[in-house]
Amino acid sequence: MAGPCAIESEEQALTIARIVKRHGAQVFRGGAFKPRTSPYSFQGLGEDGLRILKKVREETGLLIVTEATDHTNIELVEEYADIIQVGARNMQNYSLLRRAGRSAKPILLKRGFAATIEELLMSAEYIMAEGNTRVILCERGIRTFADNTRNTLDLSAIPSIKEVSHLPVVVDPSHAAGRREYVIPLSRGAIAVGADGILVEVHHDPLHALSDGRQSLYAEQFATLMKEIKFLAR
Amino acid sequence: MAGPCAIESEEQALTIARIVKRHGAQVFRGGAFKPRTSPYSFQGLGEDGLRILKKVREETGLLIVTEATDHTNIELVEEYADIIQVGARNMQNYSLLRRAGRSAKPILLKRGFAATIEELLMSAEYIMAEGNTRVILCERGIRTFADNTRNTLDLSAIPSIKEVSHLPVVVDPSHAAGRREYVIPLSRGAIAVGADGILVEVHHDPLHALSDGRQSLYAEQFATLMKEIKFLAR
Amino acid sequence: MAGPCAIESEEQALTIARIVKRHGAQVFRGGAFKPRTSPYSFQGLGEDGLRILKKVREETGLLIVTEATDHTNIELVEEYADIIQVGARNMQNYSLLRRAGRSAKPILLKRGFAATIEELLMSAEYIMAEGNTRVILCERGIRTFADNTRNTLDLSAIPSIKEVSHLPVVVDPSHAAGRREYVIPLSRGAIAVGADGILVEVHHDPLHALSDGRQSLYAEQFATLMKEIKFLAR
Amino acid sequence: MAGPCAIESEEQALTIARIVKRHGAQVFRGGAFKPRTSPYSFQGLGEDGLRILKKVREETGLLIVTEATDHTNIELVEEYADIIQVGARNMQNYSLLRRAGRSAKPILLKRGFAATIEELLMSAEYIMAEGNTRVILCERGIRTFADNTRNTLDLSAIPSIKEVSHLPVVVDPSHAAGRREYVIPLSRGAIAVGADGILVEVHHDPLHALSDGRQSLYAEQFATLMKEIKFLAR
Repeated sequence: MAGPCAIESEEQALTIARIVKRHGAQVFRGGAFKPRTSPYSFQGLGEDGLRILKKVREETGLLIVTEATDHTNIELVEEYADIIQVGARNMQNYSLLRRAGRSAKPILLKRGFAATIEELLMSAEYIMAEGNTRVILCERGIRTFADNTRNTLDLSAIPSIKEVSHLPVVVDPSHAAGRREYVIPLSRGAIAVGADGILVEVHHDPLHALSDGRQSLYAEQFATLMKEIKFLAR
Repeated sequence: MAGPCAIESEEQALTIARIVKRHGAQVFRGGAFKPRTSPYSFQGLGEDGLRILKKVREETGLLIVTEATDHTNIELVEEYADIIQVGARNMQNYSLLRRAGRSAKPILLKRGFAATIEELLMSAEYIMAEGNTRVILCERGIRTFADNTRNTLDLSAIPSIKEVSHLPVVVDPSHAAGRREYVIPLSRGAIAVGADGILVEVHHDPLHALSDGRQSLYAEQFATLMKEIKFLAR
Repeated sequence: MAGPCAIESEEQALTIARIVKRHGAQVFRGGAFKPRTSPYSFQGLGEDGLRILKKVREETGLLIVTEATDHTNIELVEEYADIIQVGARNMQNYSLLRRAGRSAKPILLKRGFAATIEELLMSAEYIMAEGNTRVILCERGIRTFADNTRNTLDLSAIPSIKEVSHLPVVVDPSHAAGRREYVIPLSRGAIAVGADGILVEVHHDPLHALSDGRQSLYAEQFATLMKEIKFLAR
Repeated sequence: MAGPCAIESEEQALTIARIVKRHGAQVFRGGAFKPRTSPYSFQGLGEDGLRILKKVREETGLLIVTEATDHTNIELVEEYADIIQVGARNMQNYSLLRRAGRSAKPILLKRGFAATIEELLMSAEYIMAEGNTRVILCERGIRTFADNTRNTLDLSAIPSIKEVSHLPVVVDPSHAAGRREYVIPLSRGAIAVGADGILVEVHHDPLHALSDGRQSLYAEQFATLMKEIKFLAR
C-alpha cells in the first residue's frame, strides 16, 4: 500500500499512483480528511480528495485506502474507498469503531501510539462485534524516549498479534521513522518478521509535499523497496 | 471535583454525593457514558445515568461534570451537565472537540496518556477556535515504563502549561495512580505545584464498585484529603 | 541540599555556599568527578574539587555531598565528603554499590532514569547487604516521551517507596526539569507529597556555569524556594 | 553469537556449545559474572565459569564472548575471552569503558535500556578514545510502556547507527523479547534491517536454566533460526 500522505491535487495523485502501480503496489493510500494536531494546519481536500481517489482507481486499477476521521466523513469515505482507515488518534474512538463495524468495507485499524497490543485487539473487537470481521491491523510506531526516529517501530507487535489473532497485520514504517532514509530497511525488517504487507508514503516531489514530505520515498526508492521486499516475501 | 468512576444507581450516586458535598467538594463527577477498552465491559447507564446526575444536583447543589464520548451523547450530556468532560482517549477526536467548541458549557479536556503538552494545548485550540473559550485542562498521568502506578503523574505539566496558557489546570491523581493509597499525597503535590483543582474518585463502597474500585477513596480518606488541600491551597 | 552542578573554582564554590547557607540549606552539593555522556566534555576538577569542598565545610559548616563514580575516586570522596552520592548512571553499577556498602559514610543513591522502584530498592539492598544501612534514596526524573521537561519527575515514587521501605527519600527537581522555571513549583510538590528533602542546583551566575546552567536557580530564587518549602514542611 | 545466559556447569556449557557449533554459530556466549538486579540472585560462577569457557573454545573452536562487570573481573575476562562484553547496565560506567578501551580485545557494548543512539555512540567513544577501536555495538531493546515484550526491540537503531558510524551492530532479540517464541522472527527482522550479527540465548534444557530460561531457544529452534538467517543474509 503506497501513496502520498495527503491528496493535494488530481495531478499529484495520478502522478504518484502511476509510479507506485508501475513498481507493484496493489493499494493506493492518500488522505482526504487529515487529522492534524493543530486546527490551523492543512486539513485535507475533503470530498474533492475522495473524487480524485476515485479517478486514481479508474485509471490505474489500484484499490484505495483512505482515512475516515468521524461519523460524518465515514459515510463519504465508505462510498469512495475500498478500505477504510481508522487512524492512530482514533483507535479508541469507540463510536467510530462501532460505525466502522457496520460498514461493508474492510477496515485498516492503526495502533494508537501509546496503545498496548491488547488494547489494539480490543479496538478491533469493537469493529468485529458489530459484524464486520474484515479488519487489518497496522503497527505504526509507539512513543518512547528514543529520539532517533519520530516513533519507535515495534516489530515485535507482529508475532505478539499473530500469537492470539488471525487478523492480518501490516506495518507503516514511514510514520514510525519520520525519515525516508529508514523506510527501506524497516520495510525489509517488517516483511522478514512476518508482516502481511506494508503501508508507505511515496511522493514524486517530497520536498514540496504539503505534509510529511520528510518521510516520503522518492520514486526510485520505492522501486528499490518493492524489489527487495518481493524477494524477501518469497 | 469528586465522585465515583461510573454512575451505578441513584442510591449509589446520592450516597457518594452527600459524602463529597459534606467535605467540601464543589463539583460531582460520575460517568454515564464510559469509554471502555473492551466492548464487553460495562459501558455506563447512558441517559439514565444523566437523569441520576440531575437529581444529584437538585438535591445537593453540586455542579455536575460528566463525559461525552461522541457526537450523539454530547447532545444529551450538554443538556444535563454543568461541565462536559472530553476524556483522554478522545483528546485528539477532532470532530468531538469542534462540537464541544460549539457548546455553551465549559469543557474539561483530559490530556491523552501519550500526549505532549503542546498537543494538549492544540486540542484545546480546536475547542476555542469554535468559540468556546471556557476550557479546563486536566493532567491525569502518562504512559511510561514505570510500573509502580498505572500511569506516571506528570506534575511538571502544570508549570509547563501555565507558562504559555491562561487556561485553568486540574489534576486527576486517581487515574494516574491506579491505587487509592497514593491519591492523598499526590493531591497535595498537585495543589502545591499550582493546580487549580483536583478531580478524584470517591466511592462509599469501593470494593463493590463496578469500575476502578481499586483507586477510589473511602469517605474518610476524602475527608482527610479535603482538609489537607484546603490548608495547602491557602 | 543545594549547590552547583560542578565545582568550578574555590571562589565559585564559596560564593554559592554562602548563598545557600544564608537561606537555610544544610548540605552543600557540587560535583568534583562528573560522569559526562561525552568523553570530551568537562569531567570535573577531581581531587582539587574535593579540597575546595573541604574548605566549604570549614568555612560554612555545611555538610558535603558529592559523587563518586568509580572504585578509585570513591576512596577520595569518602575521605572528603559527609555523604557519598552514587549517580543515576551508576545505580546498577553493582561493584560500586558494594564498595559504598563498606563505607562508613551515608550514601545518596539516585534512581536510574529508567529504573523501576523495585530496582532502586534492590540497588539499595546491594549497599545495605554489605553493612551500610544509611542509604538516602533520590528521585530525579525518568525518561518518557514527554518533551516539556528533560525527564519526567515521578513524585509517585515517594509514596511507592515509603510503602515498603523505611529509607529517607529526597527529590532532585533540577535534573528532572532541566529548566530553573519549574524547580520551585516541583520542589513544593515534592515536599507536599512527602519527600524528606530536596536536592537542587544553585549558581550565583548560571549563564556562565560550566554545566547545567539552564536548570540552576539564581540566589533569589533559592531564597524564595526555601521560604516556601519551610512553610510547607511545617 | 549463541549460548546460555549463564554458565552453570562444564557439562551444560559444552552441551550447548556443541549444539550451537553444529548449527553454524561462530561465537559462544555465556555469563560467568552476572549483573543481577537483586544481590540475593545467582551471581554467576566467576573464574570457574571463565575456565569452563576456555574449555568450550578448546573443544569446539568457537570464539568466546562474556561479560566483565567491573574493574576487577575485566582483568580475568580479558585473559579468557575473545570478546569482552560491557552490559546494558554498565553502558555509562565510564571507568569500565575506559578500562575496556585499554584492552587488546574487541568490546561488545550493549545499549543501555534507556539510552539514546547518541549516548551509545558517546559510550563507544569513551572506549575508542583510549585506543581500542574494535567496538561492536549491540541493540537489545529499550524500556517503553509496551507490555507484550520485556523490552521493545528498536530495529531502527541499526540504520540510525549506520548513518553516522562505521561500527558493526549486532542485535540481541532474546533480552528484548523475553520470550523464546519471538526470537526467530525478530532475528530475521534484525538481519533484514541490516544487522551484522545476532546474539541469542540457547539452552539445551530451558525449563531448568538458572536464569532467563523463558527466553532461551531450544536446540531445534536454533537450528531453524540459523537456516533462516543464513538464507536472509545472502
